[in-house]
Amino acid sequence: MKLVTVRVDGVHRAGRVDDDVVTLLDFDDVGALLAAGGLDAARSASGPTVAYAECDLAPVVPNPDKIVCVGLNYADHIAETGRDTPSHPTYFAKYRRALIGPNDPIVLPDPAISADVDWEGELAIVIGRSVRLAGDREAAAAIAGFTVVNDVSMRDWQMRTSQFLAGKTFEGSTPVGPCVVTTDEIGDGLGLDITTELSGVVKQSSNTRELVFSPIDIVVDLSKIMTLDPGDIVATGTPSGVGRARTPPEFMAAGDTLVTTVAGIGELRNEILAPRSA
Amino acid sequence: MKLVTVRVDGVHRAGRVDDDVVTLLDFDDVGALLAAGGLDAARSASGPTVAYAECDLAPVVPNPDKIVCVGLNYADHIAETGRDTPSHPTYFAKYRRALIGPNDPIVLPDPAISADVDWEGELAIVIGRSVRLAGDREAAAAIAGFTVVNDVSMRDWQMRTSQFLAGKTFEGSTPVGPCVVTTDEIGDGLGLDITTELSGVVKQSSNTRELVFSPIDIVVDLSKIMTLDPGDIVATGTPSGVGRARTPPEFMAAGDTLVTTVAGIGELRNEILAPRSA
Repeated sequence: MKLVTVRVDGVHRAGRVDDDVVTLLDFDDVGALLAAGGLDAARSASGPTVAYAECDLAPVVPNPDKIVCVGLNYADHIAETGRDTPSHPTYFAKYRRALIGPNDPIVLPDPAISADVDWEGELAIVIGRSVRLAGDREAAAAIAGFTVVNDVSMRDWQMRTSQFLAGKTFEGSTPVGPCVVTTDEIGDGLGLDITTELSGVVKQSSNTRELVFSPIDIVVDLSKIMTLDPGDIVATGTPSGVGRARTPPEFMAAGDTLVTTVAGIGELRNEILAPRSA
Repeated sequence: MKLVTVRVDGVHRAGRVDDDVVTLLDFDDVGALLAAGGLDAARSASGPTVAYAECDLAPVVPNPDKIVCVGLNYADHIAETGRDTPSHPTYFAKYRRALIGPNDPIVLPDPAISADVDWEGELAIVIGRSVRLAGDREAAAAIAGFTVVNDVSMRDWQMRTSQFLAGKTFEGSTPVGPCVVTTDEIGDGLGLDITTELSGVVKQSSNTRELVFSPIDIVVDLSKIMTLDPGDIVATGTPSGVGRARTPPEFMAAGDTLVTTVAGIGELRNEILAPRSA
């Protein structure tokens, strides 16, 4: 099953995608659906329908309690950053104000604030039920499904101190979606091709089987720290090919189109726009 | 004005403290009061009253949109970590599940998960109105007031990768409160004595005038990244005297009492409890 959050008359509404049709469900968004335990009922629920092609898609979970990002989780990306393979997953956060819909534009910051806007295509876990101190089986059962994130990163802000957060949570920088594909359809999230293209040029191309820490590993580990809640998003890390690691470094510019794809889930397609004048 | 969030009959309720009496206000908590622009009306609002001494205090903002922490912001603490004075504030995050009330116990994790539970007494900013791309004046006006946080840190998890988040957001580890003191009463947050005592022994003793980046500096800088929202909590960093930097290192144990005080605001008083058996 594929679930989306659509913008209808200025509010959010959860929907189920069947081929090219979206059935609107009685939940405000996919996060609310998951929190209410509505996943099974959603499979057969009826409701008004709209054409998928005409939907204005919101972030698939617009208001997650938590957004956790895993850094340094593909061997090839670890190599390009010059770091050692970690013994534990590296976590940092984003705030909800960073999230945008899968087809929303990314508006660049004023270049006096940041000019080093880079891409990081990622598979993301969407939590379906609360889980704490999980073993592998509980972790697997707690995953509702998977979505796509581009962890767009302001490298100047990310690198100006030891902690990545500042460069990872710029407002309106992080597309998420287009849908959550449930685990009965997509499995454990491994073995999926993942690509990032900038203006038609492939910049990142890998497969989620290259993940150092699997989605289940990550949920087991995070659940030692805290309860994961329905709708929580965990971005699992990016493969090699980020702009900062290129020679010379490459960053996004107004007029670019960023396309991030995970096979079996779908694509994020984001126009890069010039800064809004003050 | 001092504002608190109290637990009444299993729900939260905002209150105004006048000496030893709390007047209950028509808001679910201090975050809801701030989001509704209720600060001015709260000064003269009437309502049912309860004795302060009998109040069960919740985290003063139980569900902030964001919790931002500033690391390395007192010169003496920077020295004890062996790092250089930063040119920019160092930010990391906590999730809301970390928060507990000012007098709630801190339950230690299973020692097989973490045994290195350390203290970090801090002054915290509470945002009162939305602010983005602020100058100094807008930043000052966006600060509703100040509260106290102990950024209790699981050092083993904090230090196992480059990113602090994992050790900073253990569930139920971070007391916040007891109240928000508004800026008309407490000013810009500078010049306040700050102490952390463990079981009657002073471990940290400093003054907020030693902050490298002031509350206004921090709000100006953060507002370049994203909109700050009413109820957002920004912990401004800890002075020297943390357990990890002592010789030999010291950590908290069951039976300890952690008391964190900022003059003019009040104290957090948290019993340290043994892990819950599985």
